[in-house]
Amino acid sequence: MDTFYVETQQRCQFVNITEAVRQSLSRSGLRQGIGVVYCPHTTAGLTINEAYDPDVAHDILLYLDQHVPRDLPGFRHIEKNSDAHIKASLFGSSVTLLVQEGDIVLGRWQGIFFCEFDGPRQRMLQIKWLEIGK
Amino acid sequence: MDTFYVETQQRCQFVNITEAVRQSLSRSGLRQGIGVVYCPHTTAGLTINEAYDPDVAHDILLYLDQHVPRDLPGFRHIEKNSDAHIKASLFGSSVTLLVQEGDIVLGRWQGIFFCEFDGPRQRMLQIKWLEIGK
Amino acid sequence: MDTFYVETQQRCQFVNITEAVRQSLSRSGLRQGIGVVYCPHTTAGLTINEAYDPDVAHDILLYLDQHVPRDLPGFRHIEKNSDAHIKASLFGSSVTLLVQEGDIVLGRWQGIFFCEFDGPRQRMLQIKWLEIGK
Repeated sequence: MDTFYVETQQRCQFVNITEAVRQSLSRSGLRQGIGVVYCPHTTAGLTINEAYDPDVAHDILLYLDQHVPRDLPGFRHIEKNSDAHIKASLFGSSVTLLVQEGDIVLGRWQGIFFCEFDGPRQRMLQIKWLEIGK
Repeated sequence: MDTFYVETQQRCQFVNITEAVRQSLSRSGLRQGIGVVYCPHTTAGLTINEAYDPDVAHDILLYLDQHVPRDLPGFRHIEKNSDAHIKASLFGSSVTLLVQEGDIVLGRWQGIFFCEFDGPRQRMLQIKWLEIGK
Repeated sequence: MDTFYVETQQRCQFVNITEAVRQSLSRSGLRQGIGVVYCPHTTAGLTINEAYDPDVAHDILLYLDQHVPRDLPGFRHIEKNSDAHIKASLFGSSVTLLVQEGDIVLGRWQGIFFCEFDGPRQRMLQIKWLEIGK
């Protein structure tokens, strides 16, 4: 298992981790198979989306900010970050990647993003690479 | 493939299945690899989120209840549970887990939850464990 | 890696790809393991939900249309399709499938859907099948 760290600077922020994931694949030596990037945090997530225009990440975060309220009558969680937990479940705690000829299979505009929903913090990500059996 | 069952008591409910998944891993004998927990139902899902404070699950369910309406002008599905199908797609039908030294890799606060969106019912979950090739 | 194409006819549309995925599995010869269907596009996604009654897909799309606005004050992305990127991240770019005795493990009502959020277009999907190690 490979591990790397991300430092976030804002409460909600997308961090492009594509290059870090590529370096991890390179270290593994895998040529054909799949990879799983895992987020062990409950107020953050992972997604694959457009990496070319940073306005896309901006607009996704703006939508989440307006549609997942920081407080709601009836919320009980004492840490007052239930919105971050909701966003984590909506986005998911892992992304699964295809590996072909030693590289991650990504569409032309795609990048892999760590999604911070309760920063700023130091966050850890874990990766496993699996060789294809057939 | 391993299978286990969950009994739900409410229409919408999170059931912590971490221990059941750990037991399945133990039965498999896998030491290094990944696991996929699969939900074969269309009005339920799976998520990984905070298992320490039950108020987190409460608040996620409260948000979903208020933001995914049980009925909407224009809904056509005759079973009147379209909200449950929507929540199922937002959360997803599987979670992928990393396995290291014979244990599931989970963050300090993380647990695995079966997400019932149209109970109470008996539900089935299926798991496969894959050994790492490289 | 296997590849196939989907032609969409509307801006937002679910296309049932279960049969195409089954054919891909058949070509692979895999008997036990998992499969990953991957969407290399940033304005589309994948989901598993009810395939029996097409009104379910209709209602999910209606919900998304009303709850993920096409424009929002503050949106910056110049292509004016931020809603499609948001839906892509909410649904996810892959689905993971269990394979048992040469067939995909699906619940009675489940089907696999390509989710077009910015069509009509020709779209590509990629699949890898992994043999189980243990």
